[in-house]
Amino acid sequence: MPVMTADDLHTFLAAEFPQVKSDFVIEEVRDMGIRVRLKVEERHLRPGGTVSGPTMFSLADVSVYLAILAMIGPQALAVTTNCSIDFMRKPAAGTDLIADCTLLKLGRVLAVGDLLIRSDGVEAPVAHATLTYSIPPRG
Amino acid sequence: MPVMTADDLHTFLAAEFPQVKSDFVIEEVRDMGIRVRLKVEERHLRPGGTVSGPTMFSLADVSVYLAILAMIGPQALAVTTNCSIDFMRKPAAGTDLIADCTLLKLGRVLAVGDLLIRSDGVEAPVAHATLTYSIPPRG
Amino acid sequence: MPVMTADDLHTFLAAEFPQVKSDFVIEEVRDMGIRVRLKVEERHLRPGGTVSGPTMFSLADVSVYLAILAMIGPQALAVTTNCSIDFMRKPAAGTDLIADCTLLKLGRVLAVGDLLIRSDGVEAPVAHATLTYSIPPRG
Amino acid sequence: MPVMTADDLHTFLAAEFPQVKSDFVIEEVRDMGIRVRLKVEERHLRPGGTVSGPTMFSLADVSVYLAILAMIGPQALAVTTNCSIDFMRKPAAGTDLIADCTLLKLGRVLAVGDLLIRSDGVEAPVAHATLTYSIPPRG
Repeated sequence: MPVMTADDLHTFLAAEFPQVKSDFVIEEVRDMGIRVRLKVEERHLRPGGTVSGPTMFSLADVSVYLAILAMIGPQALAVTTNCSIDFMRKPAAGTDLIADCTLLKLGRVLAVGDLLIRSDGVEAPVAHATLTYSIPPRG
Repeated sequence: MPVMTADDLHTFLAAEFPQVKSDFVIEEVRDMGIRVRLKVEERHLRPGGTVSGPTMFSLADVSVYLAILAMIGPQALAVTTNCSIDFMRKPAAGTDLIADCTLLKLGRVLAVGDLLIRSDGVEAPVAHATLTYSIPPRG
Repeated sequence: MPVMTADDLHTFLAAEFPQVKSDFVIEEVRDMGIRVRLKVEERHLRPGGTVSGPTMFSLADVSVYLAILAMIGPQALAVTTNCSIDFMRKPAAGTDLIADCTLLKLGRVLAVGDLLIRSDGVEAPVAHATLTYSIPPRG
Repeated sequence: MPVMTADDLHTFLAAEFPQVKSDFVIEEVRDMGIRVRLKVEERHLRPGGTVSGPTMFSLADVSVYLAILAMIGPQALAVTTNCSIDFMRKPAAGTDLIADCTLLKLGRVLAVGDLLIRSDGVEAPVAHATLTYSIPPRG
């Protein structure tokens, strides 16, 4: 079961990643999973009004990271080792993105998270990503 | 909704891929998804009794292919363009593998399928894969 | 052979992606390949002084995009459909990143680019990425 | 520098993986890299005479595995954790496949190998793959 709440994770994010903290809202923390909202702002957009690829990558990366921390606590310095992301549809213009993330594996040295990104209120997914994190040994 | 049943797909597999037809049983066909059983035989195993990586790749590839055909019919010559697969746990020895596949996208030229592979009766997934197929234009 | 020069690509980038144009310098355009420098600024960094994952994703994405445009010209609205990226080493602090990109395939509907990202002057690669772009039919 | 020769690797393969040993010929072992030939036989083919996807996956997997062993010796029980593979062109009919593999990283716990697969004598690559292996701690 999670050892950090959504509030704990917000506090952690604000302290460690002040430059992105206002981008993300943790909407739900559950066993081996998390739901994160990206509050879309002008700076996330490409010409035409859709959210940029790097912004979606960022949402995917943060979501898996926070899902891991929620389970193992804030002491870990996990780093991304691999990300595979499929961009499947254009995001709806001017709409927040919601990432729904499940940890498929939370091992001693590797964790694997899988997620779908959707435009808020739209069923068909915008993107799908799978990320692997390397978890350093505890001190 | 699917236009081919599990029986239709078995018939198609036997005609087009006689060399692998006895490996796979289609257990369920649903809207944009499929469940396929790999009947594990000696030839699928690595020393130690676990199913080999190429065999799991084969299960993933066939599952997405059949999920696409179920939706668009047997006329298509879809080809795999990308596969990303994460191997997360050792399969249980001497146990069939079950692939649960969902099509995340079924476009005019590209389809994306996502699947989990589990040892029959075991909840924790053995592998996760995402595959992209290119669908040639209809004649 | 390329139909756009480094200067052409800089002009295109400035017109179409004004928000990122100052991040990237195209150092070389060659047949089916390109070398792009990311001028690392404060905003690209994570705590600790290393370049963030989303920034490296952005460099990878732009590099393959520009390698494609260099070959087919600026008329195309190519979109990323898949990216697989491996993060292998920490970038050197305060150092530009260099992406060396090769197009492995430039088909009628799909292009595949492969690249290594290195810290300027360091041989061991920081990251490796492979991206697929979908190329829309010409009007 | 490598600690195993091509002959050492053939002997290892014959002892540990007798079911596939006759498929592969190690053509070159170099520092952080290897070249492996798949001797194409009837059983590797799909209808139409092209090499099947699982066979190419198998070639990719074996090549990275042997490249790692060549560098660290036969004691290791390395396991594949991730593979991303792009299928770009149809292999030439009735022609061996050649995999050219480079290790991009050979760390204490993770190794990353990158490779191109070509039909023997044809420059344009058939497939590209990147694999991550997890290396267990030495006893």
